Parts: sequence; C-alpha cells; structure tokens
Amino acid sequence: MSGVFIVFEGGDGVGKSTQVAMLASLLASRGVHHTVTRQPGGTPLGAKLRRLILDHGHGDVAPRTEALMYAADKAQHVYEVVAPALERGEVVVCDRYVDSMIAYQGAGRSLGLDEVALVAGWATGGLLPDLTVLLDADPADAVEQISIKDRLESAGVDFHRRARAHLLHLASKDPERYLILDARRSREDLADAIAARVAEVTGR
Amino acid sequence: MSGVFIVFEGGDGVGKSTQVAMLASLLASRGVHHTVTRQPGGTPLGAKLRRLILDHGHGDVAPRTEALMYAADKAQHVYEVVAPALERGEVVVCDRYVDSMIAYQGAGRSLGLDEVALVAGWATGGLLPDLTVLLDADPADAVEQISIKDRLESAGVDFHRRARAHLLHLASKDPERYLILDARRSREDLADAIAARVAEVTGR
Repeated sequence: MSGVFIVFEGGDGVGKSTQVAMLASLLASRGVHHTVTRQPGGTPLGAKLRRLILDHGHGDVAPRTEALMYAADKAQHVYEVVAPALERGEVVVCDRYVDSMIAYQGAGRSLGLDEVALVAGWATGGLLPDLTVLLDADPADAVEQISIKDRLESAGVDFHRRARAHLLHLASKDPERYLILDARRSREDLADAIAARVAEVTGR
Repeated sequence: MSGVFIVFEGGDGVGKSTQVAMLASLLASRGVHHTVTRQPGGTPLGAKLRRLILDHGHGDVAPRTEALMYAADKAQHVYEVVAPALERGEVVVCDRYVDSMIAYQGAGRSLGLDEVALVAGWATGGLLPDLTVLLDADPADAVEQISIKDRLESAGVDFHRRARAHLLHLASKDPERYLILDARRSREDLADAIAARVAEVTGR
C-alpha cells in the first residue's frame, strides 16, 4: 500500500479533533490527497455497533462482548475506509485506532492488554500506523468540556489514568512510530510539531 | 461449574431443532432442571447483532467483521445465559455453538479455521461443551424446507459441503466429546441414541 497512515491518540478532551482538523487543513492547502476518519464508528456498520454498545449500557455487556464489538468496528473500518485510501496512495488521518481499544478495554481491568491487542491485531489484519501522534495529559488537566467531564467522572479518574498509562506504555514499545506531545502546549505549537513530523513521514 | 453443557451441531435442515425439543421434553419429564438456548441470537444483544449482519448484506461486511460480530454474540451468550445456568447446576441444551462459527466462517475460505477457532475460543473464555451431538448429512440430502433450500442454493452447495467437512474434522479431533449421528435416521431413532448418551454424560 502506497499511502501513509497517521493516527491521533490520547484521552478525552486533549484536543485530538482540533489537531486532526488542523492537519487536514494543512494537507488540503498543500494539495495532498487525504482521508480524515475516526474509530470507533467510522463506517455505517461501525456507527451502528457503537450505538448498540452505548445504548445497551455497560453493565449488561460482557467485557469480551464489548471488546469484540469494538474489534468488529475496527475490522470494518480498515476494510471499507483505511485500506482502500492507502491503496489509492492517500494520507489517512484517523482519530483513534487500535491503541485506544487496547488502553480502554485494558483499563477496565477484567481483560489483559495482551489478549485485547491480539484481538485488535487480528481485526485490523495487523495494519499499523506509520505514525501515531499521542497527545498526552493527565485526565484531570485535559478536560475542558462539561459533557466530557461528566463522562470522565462517571467512569472514574482512575480508569482514565490507567488508560493514559497504557497509551504511554504502547508508545514506549515502538518509539519510532510515535510522536508524544504534551497536550497542554498551545494548539498552534502542537500543530507545528505535528506538521514537521508528518512532513518527514510523508515526504510531502 | 456443576451443570452439563450439551450442544447440537449440523447443517441447515438436518433436524437440530426437532432433536433439541425432544431432548428438552425428555429432561422435563424426568424433572431435570435445564435451559434450552441457541446461537447465534440467544440474547437480546446477540439477536440485534445477528440482525445487523443479515440486514447489512454479506457483500458489504468484511469477513473479519462478520466473524467478530458472531464472536461477540457468543461472548454475550456464554456470559448471560450459558455460564449462569451451568453455575446453577442445570443441563444446558444449545442449538449451535462455536463449531458452527468455525465451520461456516472457515467455509467462506477467506479466513483460516485456526484463526477463527482462536477468536471463538477467546469469546467463550474457552468453555467447551461436555457433549456435542453432530447430526450429519450431505447438504443436498438434508434439506426439506423450501426456505432453507433457497438459502442453501444462494450460498452454494459447495459452501455447505465445506462447512460439513469442517464440522466432521472438529469432531474427529476430540471424539470423546462428540456423538456423530447420521441425520437420515428416523427422529425417534435419533432421539433414543441421544437420550442414551445424554444419560451417560449427565448421570441423570
């Protein structure tokens, strides 16, 4: 596949969607063919799966069921969106990918990181990002929006701290594929750092 | 878990539901606490997942997506129905289980039996039936109902022959856990053979 696959990871409220949008504008301004997408829910089927998980209520859904439904979302998204765009030679910019699934499912404690990683890896056929931008912040610092704050508090700050630690752990295992940035930096500053690294990776 | 887990496997139209019902009547007449259930679709969430797969149309769903959605159905079914009933000490009679998933997903050719078996095994936490009754017949012989005939023909007889071969292969790997019966035998004759073996397995 001739395209370049760039993923943004990080907790709720760290500014991923802002940076995704800024990178997309930059690529557009340079005339680089690109696709902006996200997980979970980046396909019609994936959106239905996501709604099914959220509507059903977490207490009623077994941890393995939830992980497999998120994995199904990922499988469909790679098949329908990411792989075709990479085959067309585009830069694919994706808001969350496999690391989020591993970190959040693992943060729930009932499932091990390694087993979730195996399922997620099978779902995506082993497709790895060329670059993952990890916007890192303590969950308590990161959150600005009330709606996210509510969600965060309902799951508990400890849960989000475990997820953050898992994301950093995944990045530490393959440092060349990651750009870890302190999410408290200004959005322009972050965008500059991301643009520089993306230019290296894409050669464009 | 103190219960006994009995599964019926076999192609469409071999008479699984008839034998499930006959066994359930027998257990009821003997006052044996039991649960009759099925995969896929044996829970409310599983039924929604199944509908999502069928409504979406197979062409649009990636093979891995479909396998993961069926695996999610299995995970939820074990968690919500099978494991609790076994913990209560019941006999659980289930129409189709993991073997069907492996055989049918594998028959589609794009996924290997071993990888599907791994995913299905993870979904069910490795829970194996104490006994699997495999009602075996050539797909062309087995089918009486027109509606099943249509479905069978749309998928192709070869597909169903591959699935049959996979089911026999799975049984051959662990023969003590299987009772393979020629599905062309009379329903009473089959029911007698099943009742005898179930009595051995359950001790009731």
